[in-house]
Parts: sequence; C-alpha cells; structure tokens
Amino acid sequence: MSGELQKLKEHLGKVNDLGKAAAVLDWDLQTYMPAGGADTRSRQLGTLSEMSHELFTADEVGQWLEALAPREAELDYDSDDASLIRVTRRDYEKQRRVPARLVGEIKRAASLGQKAWEQARGESDFSIHRPHLEKLVALRVQWALCFDYEESIYDPMLDDFEPGLTTATVRSVFDAFRPRLVELVSAIAERQERVDASCLKGEFDLEAQKTLGLEALKVMGFDFERGRQDVSAHPFSTSFSSSDVRITTNYHADDFAQAFFGTVHEGGHALYELGVDPALDGSLLGEGTSTTVHESQSRLFENIVGRSRPFWQFFYPQLQTAFPQFKQVELETFYRAINQVGPSLIRIYADEVTYGLHIILRFELEQALVTGELEVADLPAAWNAKMEEYLGLTPPSDAQGVLQDVHWSNAYIGYFPDYLLGSMLSVQLFEKAQEEMPDLTSQIESGRLESLLEWLGTEIHTHGRKFTLDELTDRVLGESLSPEPYLRYLQERYGEIYGL
Amino acid sequence: MSGELQKLKEHLGKVNDLGKAAAVLDWDLQTYMPAGGADTRSRQLGTLSEMSHELFTADEVGQWLEALAPREAELDYDSDDASLIRVTRRDYEKQRRVPARLVGEIKRAASLGQKAWEQARGESDFSIHRPHLEKLVALRVQWALCFDYEESIYDPMLDDFEPGLTTATVRSVFDAFRPRLVELVSAIAERQERVDASCLKGEFDLEAQKTLGLEALKVMGFDFERGRQDVSAHPFSTSFSSSDVRITTNYHADDFAQAFFGTVHEGGHALYELGVDPALDGSLLGEGTSTTVHESQSRLFENIVGRSRPFWQFFYPQLQTAFPQFKQVELETFYRAINQVGPSLIRIYADEVTYGLHIILRFELEQALVTGELEVADLPAAWNAKMEEYLGLTPPSDAQGVLQDVHWSNAYIGYFPDYLLGSMLSVQLFEKAQEEMPDLTSQIESGRLESLLEWLGTEIHTHGRKFTLDELTDRVLGESLSPEPYLRYLQERYGEIYGL
Repeated sequence: MSGELQKLKEHLGKVNDLGKAAAVLDWDLQTYMPAGGADTRSRQLGTLSEMSHELFTADEVGQWLEALAPREAELDYDSDDASLIRVTRRDYEKQRRVPARLVGEIKRAASLGQKAWEQARGESDFSIHRPHLEKLVALRVQWALCFDYEESIYDPMLDDFEPGLTTATVRSVFDAFRPRLVELVSAIAERQERVDASCLKGEFDLEAQKTLGLEALKVMGFDFERGRQDVSAHPFSTSFSSSDVRITTNYHADDFAQAFFGTVHEGGHALYELGVDPALDGSLLGEGTSTTVHESQSRLFENIVGRSRPFWQFFYPQLQTAFPQFKQVELETFYRAINQVGPSLIRIYADEVTYGLHIILRFELEQALVTGELEVADLPAAWNAKMEEYLGLTPPSDAQGVLQDVHWSNAYIGYFPDYLLGSMLSVQLFEKAQEEMPDLTSQIESGRLESLLEWLGTEIHTHGRKFTLDELTDRVLGESLSPEPYLRYLQERYGEIYGL
Repeated sequence: MSGELQKLKEHLGKVNDLGKAAAVLDWDLQTYMPAGGADTRSRQLGTLSEMSHELFTADEVGQWLEALAPREAELDYDSDDASLIRVTRRDYEKQRRVPARLVGEIKRAASLGQKAWEQARGESDFSIHRPHLEKLVALRVQWALCFDYEESIYDPMLDDFEPGLTTATVRSVFDAFRPRLVELVSAIAERQERVDASCLKGEFDLEAQKTLGLEALKVMGFDFERGRQDVSAHPFSTSFSSSDVRITTNYHADDFAQAFFGTVHEGGHALYELGVDPALDGSLLGEGTSTTVHESQSRLFENIVGRSRPFWQFFYPQLQTAFPQFKQVELETFYRAINQVGPSLIRIYADEVTYGLHIILRFELEQALVTGELEVADLPAAWNAKMEEYLGLTPPSDAQGVLQDVHWSNAYIGYFPDYLLGSMLSVQLFEKAQEEMPDLTSQIESGRLESLLEWLGTEIHTHGRKFTLDELTDRVLGESLSPEPYLRYLQERYGEIYGL
C-alpha cells in the first residue's frame, strides 16, 4: 500500500473513533443519562465533534488526497481503496468549508436541544423548546451559508443527508406525487367502513410487547451478539461499528402497534448497518451511504414486509400468544386493521398512504424556517394550520403536534424528505428482489427472511458508503429513484383493501 | 484572569472532555455493550486515551505552566487557581514521561482484557484470561519503566493511584498490621458459635433487592437526578461530571447482602463524586483526589455506617418489608449475622476483619507479578496457596479465586492496597465526625445521614483533587493516615460481638 494511503487510513481511523465515541455519548444521552448530565454531556459532545472535524479537515489530509489522485485513477472504481479516496475527497471538500468552532457549537446546541425537547414534549410546552430551536435554526443557517448553493439555502441541508439532492428535485417529485396521493386518500376516506381497526384497541402488557418485538427482530435476522434494543423518548438507531448496532423503541400500554412497527422500522436500519462489510469498519465507508437509502431499508421492513399478509401469515400466531385477545380475531381482520388508512396526528405511527402528507408538511415548514419566511415563534400555529389543510386534523396539544419529532432539536433540518424518497426507493428495491427471487412471497409466508436479507446485503448493505444513492440505483435497478412504483404499490395494496 | 491561565483552562477542558467520553465508553462496555462491540470499542478507547494524553502533554501546556509559576506563588495555596496549576504541573511532569502510543496500547489491551475477563470468570477458565493478563502485566511494567523509582518497579504503580505512596510505606503499614489482624481473626475463630448467620440464607426476589438498594441510596443522599445505578459483572462507580455519576451492582438470588452492601459501597464512591464543587467540573480537579480517599468514603458507608446497629435500627423495617422472612428475625440476630467474621473466598463480600487478608494477598501477588518473581501462568496456583495460608480456604474454582476481581484485567495493578488504607482512613474520618457531631449516632439511628454527608462534603468531597491525601488528613484530622484507629475499631466492634 502506498505510504499516503496507509497514513490516510490511520488518520481516518482516528476520525472515525472520535465520531463513534460521540455516537455512544449520544446514545447514552437519549437512553440512560440522568437529567443532571445534560450540560457536561453537551460540552463533551461539542469537543468530540470539534476535534473530529479538526482532525479530518487537517491540511495533510488534503495533501494525501492530492498525492493519491494518480493512484485513484488507476484503481478499479468499485474497489475499497478507490471508493475510500473518492468519498474522503467529497467529504473533505465539504467539511473544509465549515469552521470547527461552528461544528462544535451546533453539536453542543443539539445536545441541549435534545434534552429540552424531551422535557418540552413531556410537558407539551413549546416555550421550553422554542429558544433552543431558534438557536438551532440560526446555527443551521450559518452552517449552510458556508456552502455555495444555486437556488435555496435549504439545498446544502438536503445535501447533508442525501448528497446531491436539491430543493428543486424534491419539490418536483413531491409536486407530482401530492395530488395523486391526495386523490387516493380521498377515495379511501369514502370507504372507511371497509376496515374495522377496533381489534387494535386494548391493554397490552409491556413485557409481552418487548418480547414480541425481540421475536420479530430475530425473524428479521437481527444479531443480538452485535446489537441491542433499549428505550428512548424517540425511537432511533445508531451504529458504533458493524458489530455494535443499537436501536431503541418506546412502549405504549394502549397500543402495541406503535412499538412493534417502530421496532421493525429501526430493525431495518440496524440490518443495514450490521450488513456493512466489516473490512470497511473504522474508515469513512463503514456505514450506510445516505438517509434515503437508510430509510428505504427501514420502510421496506416496516411496511412492505411488516404490514404484509405473507409476514403475518407466519407471525400472527406469535402475536396471538403474546396477546391472547387476538385469538378471537381473524387474520384478515387484523391485516386490514394494521393497514387502516386515515388522517392521524403522529408521523411515525401514520399509515403508509397518509404518511407522505406528514412529510410534505415538514418539508414545507422547515424550508420556511430556514428561509426566514416563518419565525420559530409562529411554528406551532403554522403546524396546526397545515395539519388542518392536509389531514383535516388539529392537534389537541403541541406534544401531538409540532413537538412530536426529535429531528429539529438535533439540528436535523433537511432530513424529512428522505423518509418519503426512501419509501419510494423501498418499493423499487422490493420489486427488484421479487423479480430475482420469484418465491420471495412464499419464503416470507413461512417466516424465512434470510434470502431477502442476503439480497439486500449483497446489493446494498455490504457496500457501506462506497456508492451514492444514484450509483446504487444504477447498479441494482438499472434506473433512477422514481415515485411511480411507490404510487402504484400504494394504489394496489390499499385499493385491494378498500375495494377501489 | 491571565491569558495563560485562561488558555490552560480551555485546554484542560478539552482533555477532560476526552477523558470523560472514554469513561462513558468504559461504562457502556461494562453495562450494555453487546459482545460483538469489543474489538471496535477497544480501538475507540485507545484513540480517546491517546489523544487525551497527547493533548495534555503538549509543549504549550509546559510553557503555560512555566509562565504561570510566578502567579502561582502569589496565589493562596488553597485557591482553585493555585491548586489547578499545582496539580496540573504534577500530572504533566508524570504524563510527559509516558509515550502516547503506550497509553493507547494499555487502554486497548485493558478494554479487551475486561471482556476476556468477563468471559473467563463466567466459564471459570483462567486460560481465556491468561494471554490478556500476560500482555497487561508486560505493558504495566513498560509503563512503570518510564519513571524513576527508588526501590521497586511497583512504586510508580502505587503512585499512579495514590500519589507519593511507596512499596516501603505499604509494606511497613501492612507488616505491623497483619500479625495483630491474624490474632484477632484467630480469637474470633474460637468463638464462632456466638454468631448465627443462617437468617441470611434464602431466596431473595431480585426486584425487591433492587428496590431496597435504591432506598438505601436515597437514605444516603444519592441524587437520582444526577446519577443512576445499572448492572455489571463487577460493581463499579464512575463519574462523567459532578452531575452525572453512575454506579453498578450485581444481584444474586441466594444472597441479598452482596448486592446490598455492594450498592452502599459504590454509593459511598458516588457521594464523593457528586459532592465535588461543580466549579471544578471540566478541569483536572473535578473528581476524587485519590483511590485511598475514595475507598475511605465507600468503606465508611459500607461498613462503619452500613453494618452498624444505629443504621439498622432505622433501616431494618424496610428490609423486613422487602423480605418478609426477616419479620421472624430479631434485629440483634440480624446485626450479628451481617457482621459475622470468618474466612471467605470473595473479597468484595468478605467481612471487615478478614478483608485485610484478602488485600495483603493481592498486594503480595501483584508485586510478584510485576517484579517477575511470579509468572502469570503460575498465578492461579500461587493464589490458591496464599488463600490456604491466610484464610485456610482453597477456592473450588478460579471464578471464586484468581478470576474474581476485574482490576488486573483493567491494568489496575497497584490499586488493591488502597482499599485497606482507605478502610483505615475511614475510621479516622468517622471518629473525627463523631467528635465534631456528638449526636451523630442518634442521627443515624433516626435515618438522618445529612449531617454526616454534609461534613464529609465540606471536609473532603468539595475539594476534588485540590489537595492530596496527606494534605487532607493534615487539614481534617491534624494527623496522618494510621492503622491504629482502624485496629482499635475492629477490636471494639467485633470484640463486642464475639465477647472478646
């Protein structure tokens, strides 16, 4: 190996160690940290981020990259080394634009914002969250101003989670998608009587919920020697290496479905991280490539598999054992209940059809926040107005409205659109998998998800960050990300249920 | 504030943040980390330690310290600033001798050693632990060779945990102490019939144990807004700041006393860290000053208070509620049972009288290991021989013998003597507190530990690392650490119980 490449790898190893250490501190912050720890944790996270950024953007990294350019040109594009040089260069050029001080400041503010959000949501009091969010929006704007952008200051924020994604692209996809989605929602709204979801109401023992979630993760192929599940206010997944991946959930005694599908969703994220080639661990490549691709994995397991007839054909008896009240409920009734479509308040528990509207609402609001069209102070009212407009509901409290998601308090502005894009991608991927494995449905019916996981592993997971979203779709699908298959899938699945 | 002092403080803040981040990763390693995380965690911890060391030993720190010397001379010795400069200089001069690479290597080996030890103890298989321990002993020796020492390579290891402590001092204290301890143990051995501990046998619900431990922590004044308790293979306490202090325990269904007194012991450590002046947070001074002083706090609560008649006069009803079988047991019978003296296998559950022999055994063995008189391969046999010699017992398994303690697998060689020195100090401190608060006993009898905690807080806790052990004993006691009060205390408490 050339001297520069060896030096670069060692250097990136340290950058990665600092980043993963910060991820552990973040995980602890959201799972076990006592309230008193908030201030010092914020400082610790700020320092780790700042030092990791300083280390990564050091001049010698640029010199190594320059020295490695001829070698990169000789290497196979797909090779680990070429990919490492390419992705490092892309990251380096971006990160060099941002001062380390600002990176630290954002991390400190986000860390405090997380705890303030937990409290604000707990007390349904937006005023606790407001000063933090004001600061975070201002910092995020300051961060975006470090970049050249063509159309909108929102562009660099999108690019931060999905490299290359622009406001114009998202808008054009969403603009084409929205009217057809609204049409489907309306058609279903007129046929509400076709689905009776009353079987999902009741009391659900928390221990039984926990066990059932772990059983589902086992069926999915989650390896508990290399991961675990804990509890947090907002479910999330995080990875400290491809051998230590953590997910969280949140149980509700009156609704098992929230924790269950949340677990399957986070499990999908975790399978991606667990499937990254261990040879990429400790480099910049050892994690999922982007938010859209990540959400495609979580949404695929949560919805396409997790809410499907074949999955429940296999798994329903386990549910009936966990909650004996379902012994009186037909599988078909249950299947329809978990796929009931209707306006609801909480995004992460929304049905697949109305889900897109929750995302479009956030896409519009966060753009308005960062362009200055909307003040943070006016956000709750704007949220409620859009909820009324898109879903015909007014949140009874901010906890069930503007305070429901953790993202903004983590400075994750520009993330939400990727949920919907990821959902679109998930359908394209699943259809491709079905094409290549004609017996996939019958495998799922008998509880065998190994082939699906292996296929996703080979096509997506193992590559880590070696390829971009576009490169992956080219390689795997031979086409770009598109909303059409997703719309068709929604129309078919829910058309069948609602007799459209 | 002078420019140099400001710069030094900011710099130390970062050093501290990295160190505390490593402490969080260590805590996770011992509490929640899945087995698969061991390798990358070891690398992450190595990098954090190495970077923290590099940062701390940077040339500019030496330059700032030099520039600050005149100012230090002007400052009140007791002031925060003078103390910070003084302690930083002492640490700096020590740490400069050690290469960062070695610090990282030790941390990586210790991190892997921790997980190997857990497995080795679980399977009672020393061979799993052996290669790790061999490496750790070699690394610890390599580390000690960085220092000048007069008598023994063991000296720098003692100094690492208790600054200034030497092998000669420990030996002279232990040599004087041991024959008198052996005499007491023998006298008690002839009067075994005086104590019936059969009431401690039985089945103890784990949830009830947990609740009882938390109640005891509450009585002690542990603040759950600034700390928490989890489970680990070996109980420990750790601090991420004076507002986030974690302790762990380990429950046994057939013996509530192990988790209970372990909880009170770790609680004593935690109170020390929780009591450090928050103004010292984020500097080198924001934690307990040394291992001996730390153990004085934990052993004071565990034994002097936690196994005393006054404490149980108040707390026994809570125990009886947790475990109704004690409703048939007289308080006096219970008091004698928890103070039963007799040879036992496990140090952390040993009675106060024989405890010293467990420490002396380790003091002798670890010296032999680092001077090369004893090979790691021969350690289990040497352990068993000494157990037979000092306590008349042969461990039935290595899990109950040489594998019982985590310390060596963490490279903590030179730590054990401080447990006994700390126990000695705990008696001196408690007697001083009694002198200054004549109604202390009656306060404890009514469950009020606030005054004791406040006294310890003012005299010891609040100062963090501002003063050394010797400085503290001078200030608080007007005398040095001494084994005499401890011996007298043991003779009185156990003489009374055993009618000597």
